[in-house]
Amino acid sequence: MYDLIILGGGPAGYNAAERAGTAGLKTLVIEERALGGVCLNEGCIPTKTLLYSAKIYDYAKHGADYGVKFGSAEIDHAFVVERKNKVVKQLVSGVGAKMKKAKVEVVKATASVKERNSEGFVVVADGKEYTGRQLLICTGSSAALPPIDGLKESLESGFALTNREVLDLKAIPERIVVVGGGVIGLEMASYFNSVGSKVFVVEMMNNIAGPVDREISTLLQKEYAKRGVEFILGAKVTSIKNKAVTYEKDGKVVEIPADYALVSIGRRPRTAGIGLENIGLKLERGAIVTDEYGKTNVPGVYAAGDVNGKSMLAHTAYREGEVCINNILGKKDRINYNSIPSVIYTNPEVASVGETEESAKAKGLDVNIESITLKYSGRYIAENEHGNGIVKVITDKKHNNILGLTMIGSYASEIIYGAAMMVETEMRVSDIQKLVFPHPTVCEVIREAMFEIK
Amino acid sequence: MYDLIILGGGPAGYNAAERAGTAGLKTLVIEERALGGVCLNEGCIPTKTLLYSAKIYDYAKHGADYGVKFGSAEIDHAFVVERKNKVVKQLVSGVGAKMKKAKVEVVKATASVKERNSEGFVVVADGKEYTGRQLLICTGSSAALPPIDGLKESLESGFALTNREVLDLKAIPERIVVVGGGVIGLEMASYFNSVGSKVFVVEMMNNIAGPVDREISTLLQKEYAKRGVEFILGAKVTSIKNKAVTYEKDGKVVEIPADYALVSIGRRPRTAGIGLENIGLKLERGAIVTDEYGKTNVPGVYAAGDVNGKSMLAHTAYREGEVCINNILGKKDRINYNSIPSVIYTNPEVASVGETEESAKAKGLDVNIESITLKYSGRYIAENEHGNGIVKVITDKKHNNILGLTMIGSYASEIIYGAAMMVETEMRVSDIQKLVFPHPTVCEVIREAMFEIK
Repeated sequence: MYDLIILGGGPAGYNAAERAGTAGLKTLVIEERALGGVCLNEGCIPTKTLLYSAKIYDYAKHGADYGVKFGSAEIDHAFVVERKNKVVKQLVSGVGAKMKKAKVEVVKATASVKERNSEGFVVVADGKEYTGRQLLICTGSSAALPPIDGLKESLESGFALTNREVLDLKAIPERIVVVGGGVIGLEMASYFNSVGSKVFVVEMMNNIAGPVDREISTLLQKEYAKRGVEFILGAKVTSIKNKAVTYEKDGKVVEIPADYALVSIGRRPRTAGIGLENIGLKLERGAIVTDEYGKTNVPGVYAAGDVNGKSMLAHTAYREGEVCINNILGKKDRINYNSIPSVIYTNPEVASVGETEESAKAKGLDVNIESITLKYSGRYIAENEHGNGIVKVITDKKHNNILGLTMIGSYASEIIYGAAMMVETEMRVSDIQKLVFPHPTVCEVIREAMFEIK
Repeated sequence: MYDLIILGGGPAGYNAAERAGTAGLKTLVIEERALGGVCLNEGCIPTKTLLYSAKIYDYAKHGADYGVKFGSAEIDHAFVVERKNKVVKQLVSGVGAKMKKAKVEVVKATASVKERNSEGFVVVADGKEYTGRQLLICTGSSAALPPIDGLKESLESGFALTNREVLDLKAIPERIVVVGGGVIGLEMASYFNSVGSKVFVVEMMNNIAGPVDREISTLLQKEYAKRGVEFILGAKVTSIKNKAVTYEKDGKVVEIPADYALVSIGRRPRTAGIGLENIGLKLERGAIVTDEYGKTNVPGVYAAGDVNGKSMLAHTAYREGEVCINNILGKKDRINYNSIPSVIYTNPEVASVGETEESAKAKGLDVNIESITLKYSGRYIAENEHGNGIVKVITDKKHNNILGLTMIGSYASEIIYGAAMMVETEMRVSDIQKLVFPHPTVCEVIREAMFEIK
């Protein structure tokens, strides 16, 4: 008998387990693959390992701009992949150690919810039954694979790849088509572009990077177009087969021959086949319905992470898991989805939080919009020949507080948390003007932007 | 007749001038050298330009750890210096453009305060008299040069260098002795170590990096010792002459032959020879005495930046200048010195804000101290083979708010402003636990540290 059974050991699950175990709850985590989930094993961490190697390789190409001459440089893709595996292994074992320290039990098996009885919830895993007073569902998501002609066969033959397989390619492809220009697609496009592949990005929408501020996603696109990535926007992929991706655009049908096709058109919550119907859990469009406390429609059952289909980011999952545990422990806690930052780890990086120009306008908010160049930063100029980065701030016209911030440029990933704090705490322009930012940094352009707001 | 005359066009002066001019004050800036002051011309910016080239060069040495093989790599020091000059020139002309845009007049001349009369303050520059209703003194600081045997002659002969001359060396020295292990000394030691010089750091104190948390300055020292920098602590330099630096330590006298000696033992406010005595301005230990509003003892006279001897950082100077202008404009404003971040741009970087373990203990504060490894961050592991970074947090035991944070590791410089916000707004541990930090980042270790505080 457990106080809490957690289905899934990804960011939502393992972090919740650690908080729960540390707080004294008898906790069980059931995970069918490796601890750490998609994020650690086939998402955030492996991609960042690859991208860091690519960044070092990029320095070799541009070193001369900064007075460093390289005789020659080559990237050893197989080594990079091997190192990626080592990094993942180290982190997965770190999660295991955390579970042990927090006295959390871990079972490696496929789990399914059997029923609710008078004692709690019964979960079956590997033929064994476990009962928990409360249940936390953190089964995550998997790559969306729509019924495109030939896709199923191409996945089997190895021509089509998802975020999982693309990380283990043995060699650098000559040509790769990325289907879907969202975060995952762009990060992998960036990697393959850096290491020398010819990269095509085919996207159904008329812009890349989904909900990112349009001015900034356009800058990102231009940057990569300059480096040779071919973007085909507003295009519908009609088949993925015979070593080619075929799309339709403006009535024309075009075929792109390639070595591989990466399918990165979205993620689907993993809610099928785990017995959620046995306890009457409410789903909408395949996602578990949760409120801001992480509660589902069934008392005692919580859900966190990608499975609720809300934000689908590892760091949201962490926080959602913690919110669930706090509420289970009787400490009222809720999550504010307005102040969750997000990052695209291209080079330059893109990071954002809160409203964009488009979202603010769509909501009819009365806002000030200020875009300023990162060239206000001496450090940015010192470190970026030919840099075109900007920071864009959306403020409420009446209350003069920060509603959103998006930036493209170096260090954006590590800077954005401070902007998230500004949004979360509803900081006003005049408050930020009085903060002292270190000089010379790129982040101080945020402060400078505050003086441009009329 | 001016509303405001500003002596000195460095960070305090030019930023104050911009705010004043934009607010409609008829403003004059008098600067004897280039706009931008020490920071832009011979401090923050040029050093960061050099250090960035060194960082790229460092990648070549460690690329193999990340799967990138470099045939050969060499740094072209002359090119680096030339590029530094280009960056400085661009930024100086940017400051000029800002002055123009804000309708600030700029006079290039040596200025001296002549007298106070019924209209205001009379300043003489290049034989011409200018009168301002109010005066803002931003004359900055210069390298402290104590009466060490031979120093004066060595400065003349070019063997001894200050922060100014060291930036324009034509070639990489074989051996260089850095006298003084503070920020400037360490950053230059880092550069010369990276580009291949044999570097000695001689410091009077028993630790490097001055007031930085001792645990972290020790880590920094160990890192550079491993790379071949020789640290001689608790040593008194007795002579700098005949191409050697001589020091006394534990009763022994040792001579270090070298190509150059960089003297970086501190900065002195520049208050002499500018007529401050003619208006009865109060000095203490050579610095202008100011309050938290930037006011001096003479009504109508303000001072900002290094010249007040308080914090001696460019970003403090910016803010002090703004505080002065706000008070001149009748908008009450004060500066909080407790939440000013500071950075050492070595590799790894060190950044800090607020209390350290030592300062908290010295004040008898009742605090929690938590040091955690940056290996909690997947990104840190992905990007740092053999990294030993940590983040150290000081919290108030009773109120549970953040009093200080110091970190050593990648991106520290761009992360610390958020910690400064936490200190400034007296954020509590439980508030920070509820913030969502992007994943995977190095900054999220700050959040993780919050869960370690008992």
